[in-house]
Amino acid sequence: MTITTMEQLFVHGLQDVYYAENQIAKTLPQMVEKASDQKLRDSLNRHLQETREHLKRLEHVFQLLGQPAQGVTCQAVLGLIEEGEELVGQINNRSLRDAALIASAQAVENYEINRYGTLIAWAEEMIPRSSSMGQQGNGAKVIELLKLTLEDEKSLDRELTSIASQKVNKQAA
Amino acid sequence: MTITTMEQLFVHGLQDVYYAENQIAKTLPQMVEKASDQKLRDSLNRHLQETREHLKRLEHVFQLLGQPAQGVTCQAVLGLIEEGEELVGQINNRSLRDAALIASAQAVENYEINRYGTLIAWAEEMIPRSSSMGQQGNGAKVIELLKLTLEDEKSLDRELTSIASQKVNKQAA
Repeated sequence: MTITTMEQLFVHGLQDVYYAENQIAKTLPQMVEKASDQKLRDSLNRHLQETREHLKRLEHVFQLLGQPAQGVTCQAVLGLIEEGEELVGQINNRSLRDAALIASAQAVENYEINRYGTLIAWAEEMIPRSSSMGQQGNGAKVIELLKLTLEDEKSLDRELTSIASQKVNKQAA
Repeated sequence: MTITTMEQLFVHGLQDVYYAENQIAKTLPQMVEKASDQKLRDSLNRHLQETREHLKRLEHVFQLLGQPAQGVTCQAVLGLIEEGEELVGQINNRSLRDAALIASAQAVENYEINRYGTLIAWAEEMIPRSSSMGQQGNGAKVIELLKLTLEDEKSLDRELTSIASQKVNKQAA
């Protein structure tokens, strides 16, 4: 496949993050099982609910662009998940494992924050120029949906930092 | 290998990021070759110099901890690099390829920002408790070195955002 327009690049980015969110939704229940701290378990469970919501929002974005909602294999998120699972699998101590789980979840979180940030920046450039983005307020709606998800991801990232610094890392150290 | 202490977890994290920085140093020259915008080329070249400096700093950190400077395969950075190369390889248009190069570089950049942030948080918890971190001001020096690199990464991330928003994304769209 050759990418020749910014809109194709944008759609490719959406497909990448759609695949990533699907992989994250599959992985989170296993992370919850391995977590011991109750606040961490609650946070990861809430993240699973939010991830399902993010998938619905992406489906809405695809629909606004007249594109099928489909993923494209995202090696980055597969690597992030694999690395996290490998690390967590090497740890038996509960607090230490929680610290590693938080680090792994934040690595994925930051990947998403970065990708959504890029997609929003691209969308903001395209609105005045692209037909499917510019018509009927679609572009504004697309950006609104992506920004809602970006805020969720940033909020979870802050929450994980707080759980780590207030309790989990202290117990692990 | 089983990880049983926070210090082992920390050293594993250092090895992971040491491997990642080495991979980034190998990849950056190819990214520079594919970039067209002069500011982007300059920025990626400066990043290559900085990456070599980060490797030296990590070697200094290993030395302070009495550990050999060695990497451990980091699937995450391999995935990030592979994904970036695949995407850039699908694009012939120069401005569009520059936009994709910036997105790929920022994905790697944000991975590093996240990892160094975690390592600093862990180091700050360990100083009062760990023998090799607590003695002779080693811990303070370790944190100082990691923070210098973190600031470099954040600064490059801001620079790439600025190159994208001021010129490259506008030309691509």
